[in-house]
Amino acid sequence: MSDIAVIMGSMSDWDTMKEACDVLDEFDISYDKKIVSAHRTPELMFAFSKEAEENGYKVIIAGAGGAAHLPGMVASLTTVPVIGVPVESKTLKGMDSLLSIVQMPGGIPVATTAIGKPGAKNAGLLATQIIGITDETIRHKLHEYRQTLRNSVLESGEHFE
Amino acid sequence: MSDIAVIMGSMSDWDTMKEACDVLDEFDISYDKKIVSAHRTPELMFAFSKEAEENGYKVIIAGAGGAAHLPGMVASLTTVPVIGVPVESKTLKGMDSLLSIVQMPGGIPVATTAIGKPGAKNAGLLATQIIGITDETIRHKLHEYRQTLRNSVLESGEHFE
Amino acid sequence: MSDIAVIMGSMSDWDTMKEACDVLDEFDISYDKKIVSAHRTPELMFAFSKEAEENGYKVIIAGAGGAAHLPGMVASLTTVPVIGVPVESKTLKGMDSLLSIVQMPGGIPVATTAIGKPGAKNAGLLATQIIGITDETIRHKLHEYRQTLRNSVLESGEHFE
Amino acid sequence: MSDIAVIMGSMSDWDTMKEACDVLDEFDISYDKKIVSAHRTPELMFAFSKEAEENGYKVIIAGAGGAAHLPGMVASLTTVPVIGVPVESKTLKGMDSLLSIVQMPGGIPVATTAIGKPGAKNAGLLATQIIGITDETIRHKLHEYRQTLRNSVLESGEHFE
Amino acid sequence: MSDIAVIMGSMSDWDTMKEACDVLDEFDISYDKKIVSAHRTPELMFAFSKEAEENGYKVIIAGAGGAAHLPGMVASLTTVPVIGVPVESKTLKGMDSLLSIVQMPGGIPVATTAIGKPGAKNAGLLATQIIGITDETIRHKLHEYRQTLRNSVLESGEHFE
Amino acid sequence: MSDIAVIMGSMSDWDTMKEACDVLDEFDISYDKKIVSAHRTPELMFAFSKEAEENGYKVIIAGAGGAAHLPGMVASLTTVPVIGVPVESKTLKGMDSLLSIVQMPGGIPVATTAIGKPGAKNAGLLATQIIGITDETIRHKLHEYRQTLRNSVLESGEHFE
Amino acid sequence: MSDIAVIMGSMSDWDTMKEACDVLDEFDISYDKKIVSAHRTPELMFAFSKEAEENGYKVIIAGAGGAAHLPGMVASLTTVPVIGVPVESKTLKGMDSLLSIVQMPGGIPVATTAIGKPGAKNAGLLATQIIGITDETIRHKLHEYRQTLRNSVLESGEHFE
Amino acid sequence: MSDIAVIMGSMSDWDTMKEACDVLDEFDISYDKKIVSAHRTPELMFAFSKEAEENGYKVIIAGAGGAAHLPGMVASLTTVPVIGVPVESKTLKGMDSLLSIVQMPGGIPVATTAIGKPGAKNAGLLATQIIGITDETIRHKLHEYRQTLRNSVLESGEHFE
Repeated sequence: MSDIAVIMGSMSDWDTMKEACDVLDEFDISYDKKIVSAHRTPELMFAFSKEAEENGYKVIIAGAGGAAHLPGMVASLTTVPVIGVPVESKTLKGMDSLLSIVQMPGGIPVATTAIGKPGAKNAGLLATQIIGITDETIRHKLHEYRQTLRNSVLESGEHFE
Repeated sequence: MSDIAVIMGSMSDWDTMKEACDVLDEFDISYDKKIVSAHRTPELMFAFSKEAEENGYKVIIAGAGGAAHLPGMVASLTTVPVIGVPVESKTLKGMDSLLSIVQMPGGIPVATTAIGKPGAKNAGLLATQIIGITDETIRHKLHEYRQTLRNSVLESGEHFE
Repeated sequence: MSDIAVIMGSMSDWDTMKEACDVLDEFDISYDKKIVSAHRTPELMFAFSKEAEENGYKVIIAGAGGAAHLPGMVASLTTVPVIGVPVESKTLKGMDSLLSIVQMPGGIPVATTAIGKPGAKNAGLLATQIIGITDETIRHKLHEYRQTLRNSVLESGEHFE
Repeated sequence: MSDIAVIMGSMSDWDTMKEACDVLDEFDISYDKKIVSAHRTPELMFAFSKEAEENGYKVIIAGAGGAAHLPGMVASLTTVPVIGVPVESKTLKGMDSLLSIVQMPGGIPVATTAIGKPGAKNAGLLATQIIGITDETIRHKLHEYRQTLRNSVLESGEHFE
Repeated sequence: MSDIAVIMGSMSDWDTMKEACDVLDEFDISYDKKIVSAHRTPELMFAFSKEAEENGYKVIIAGAGGAAHLPGMVASLTTVPVIGVPVESKTLKGMDSLLSIVQMPGGIPVATTAIGKPGAKNAGLLATQIIGITDETIRHKLHEYRQTLRNSVLESGEHFE
Repeated sequence: MSDIAVIMGSMSDWDTMKEACDVLDEFDISYDKKIVSAHRTPELMFAFSKEAEENGYKVIIAGAGGAAHLPGMVASLTTVPVIGVPVESKTLKGMDSLLSIVQMPGGIPVATTAIGKPGAKNAGLLATQIIGITDETIRHKLHEYRQTLRNSVLESGEHFE
Repeated sequence: MSDIAVIMGSMSDWDTMKEACDVLDEFDISYDKKIVSAHRTPELMFAFSKEAEENGYKVIIAGAGGAAHLPGMVASLTTVPVIGVPVESKTLKGMDSLLSIVQMPGGIPVATTAIGKPGAKNAGLLATQIIGITDETIRHKLHEYRQTLRNSVLESGEHFE
Repeated sequence: MSDIAVIMGSMSDWDTMKEACDVLDEFDISYDKKIVSAHRTPELMFAFSKEAEENGYKVIIAGAGGAAHLPGMVASLTTVPVIGVPVESKTLKGMDSLLSIVQMPGGIPVATTAIGKPGAKNAGLLATQIIGITDETIRHKLHEYRQTLRNSVLESGEHFE
């Protein structure tokens, strides 16, 4: 049983969603990654969502673009927390993806991150932080991760000034 | 068995969606109206959509606001044509509803109309025109409807000039 | 006599609108394709629209970009259902095309699809679904099409996990 | 024969378009005002536009809201200069009207003014300025108008400081 | 020690953020509510964020409007998960709040919800779902909450049809 | 003395504004083209505008991008009709240029065309149409121009079907 | 001689711009307030701007709405720092004002603040901070102002928790 | 001690922010340039801002992209004037950066410039103009700079006509 499920509407979202998985790998958090399309495989999406809790998923990360219904629909079918990643779309640059994911009605939350790769990376980190609430080792690693982030800025700054 | 199903996410959408029903009433087209919420009653939405064809619906009109997933999700679960009405939302005035409904990925079409009441009215008319393809009486009435529309403009124009 | 007319404002729209025709070819639905410009050949547009019903068109698919008036104007001149495809525009990426097509006033509906190629593809599918209302063979093919869509996702998913 | 035609899609646009007529009244420029709907009376729009030149109109002012096709369609049917006024729409506040009017393709110009009443007023002034090119009396009046405008600001300024 | 901190930039955000607290009350989840302004009390924000983990907060809910920096800045100062609520702003209706909160760079996630009251309510629910990951009682209550939500739709639907 | 002045804020606008001059060349309308920057040469802009009428300009075409003040400022300094062309800007794709030009306050009109090259071309045509009001030869050529436009569409259509 | 000039396009901007003056009053900074319209009194604007430096103005605060050219044009005519305040406009809520003011080309800066009253207040504060660079008394008062701001939040927070 | 600090969130902003430094170099104004990230090095940002005044900075130029919190947060921690430069972001082209920087609440001003390089250049010029308030040499150079700007336009214009 994995802690996290990383799902996306199509293979073309993988280039973006890989960022989430890279973070989970870095923190040694177990995850399953799957192609689940709200529009092309709605039954699979239903089954996946309905079984998410008993499958032991603690957090679901769902990426989608355009009329991005996957995160919100999964969220409507489970009470496992869902993080939605708006994948950049061709014409509207992800503004459609963002609004489709974030503007959920009261009752069914989706934790939305930024458009595109930074959003996918942050989805991975947010899932990690959530796992970290009850896992001191992860919390410790998160502190180190932040320290590394800080140091990389400070070092680039030293050479810059 | 009714020809059309008019569904909406919540009672608050009725003020908008009533416009569609008024048109269907005017054309004596049978319809069922239902509250079906993608997010709060996903199972009902699934059942409704899966049975739509065998229930004899020729067209489904679905209205929703904000992260408006209802039209697209119903469309993914049936091959009965779905007309989506973007209901005006409080903060973004329906721009979020519009993009969530219209920006569907290739493979699953939703016939989208304008934001708010004009869109609901036009959803009713579009359904009527689709029924009219194979129903000469309806086609005849549609010609009369257009004539009436034209005359009302011409008459208001006469008093105006 | 063809079932569908696929019209567009200029040859430059063909790269987009070809997607609609590919779908119609796939479903063996007869169609005529034409260049009809609302702004450069308004008389042709008038004649085309006025004769659309007696020419036997069941559905008209119209693509246009920028101040995209073609779908709405054709819709105002016939009661044959019109599907509007917002072609991506150079500067505003189709947001102008979308609003010009979808925001029709109450009385004259246009069934609007997504911006660009996915929208053109879905216009073809929507026309097919409308034909399918009274054509069991088409309905059967639509079910197969959806099954193929589903399978392609499931297969890509199998290799992915 | 009047110099200017002021047309609008419906009586509800009159509250806005009256601003244009007020200006023309102020400059003693003859005009006809008419309800001409692109969508509900396309034949009237065609006839009006086709006869505009021989009817002696020097400039046409056309106001419309939402998917505002009237100015562009009239422009496509005559070479008389057309000024388009984007009427404020309910949900999108005239952004749809503006883009539908201004984003015309190369070949068919529409002289677009601001959204709403200031735009209608300016349409009246722009028509006046165009008439003024070959009418010295009008040009003189325009200079006086500007002087009055200037003075009203200067006077309000005097009391303000 | 409370499980959740609900913070907001000013008293004027309380009308919105109260929705989050109402949900937490409903689920009997302990929370502290505070006014913490990123711009007017940055030192307080720093101190609050730096002590958040040792103060035992499992989740922080932060609401802010306009150039809404509170959620992102708190997130940069702690690894406790931060949920950001874009409060509706006067002129841009919360679009500025949304983009300021959601478009975080890779490395520092903020879990963003919808603009305004639905977003605040969902922030409360999201926090509850996160607590529920390791609290079976809460999970049970969440299932009941969803059931109630579903029933309210079904009942309103019964009277509606 | 030329009939038209074509002005632009910088040499980088020429690639766009050339479209206007090409049209004027095609119609044998005399014009002067100048670099006049509202922001970098405000005195030149003042002098140019103040002398525009006595220099015999019948219409001024002004192109500018970003915070595009040139058309509106020239319009405030002369009663010669001003056509504003929103040049495509790097980041906001001309939306800033468009709003800066079109949203003029009541009293000072600017005849705005589309963003970029189509807008520049149409500015040339609009100026030509305005000249044509009192010039039968130009009117005749405009009819021919439209005929050519129409024929090019019809011919491309013939090969297309 | 006053340190600051607060100018605005029309009396209707005063309700907004008063916020800037209130701040200057609070800091005992001398200022002149004037109605200067870029479009209706361009000569006044020219004269005002050209004389601004010798009149001893250290900072100019300019408010305008819609196609808001005043701040940028004044900035092009003087090297005294100009702060631009985007006044909320009727239809586009100040988005047009903001883009018209902030998107200045390289070479002519305008220091832009937020849309509406908060922006006017901040324009007053920014001018004060600029004066404070070389005025220790003002700097001291600014520290007190910030302390008061902080305290008001802390106090409202005390009653809130 | 330098007069100006030029700070930015990451090395990737340098390509933009270099424009500000080039201007300061041109005017022989001393400056320090630093990498200071609001989100990755909040403590550094705090320390930098708190010491800015005693370090003798007269103006701070801060560039950031996306959810751009750096300028506003620095402004909240010092009364030294802060100029904010919205760096162009990948998906939303800097609209998110602009709104995150400019829409500051009343009390904490940020002087915002245009998106991207022109904005960075203008930040450098604005800082120079502010220094110039009490430095006659700088004021003199600014007049020359404007003259050079003017001449370059006039010369390009000469070859153009």
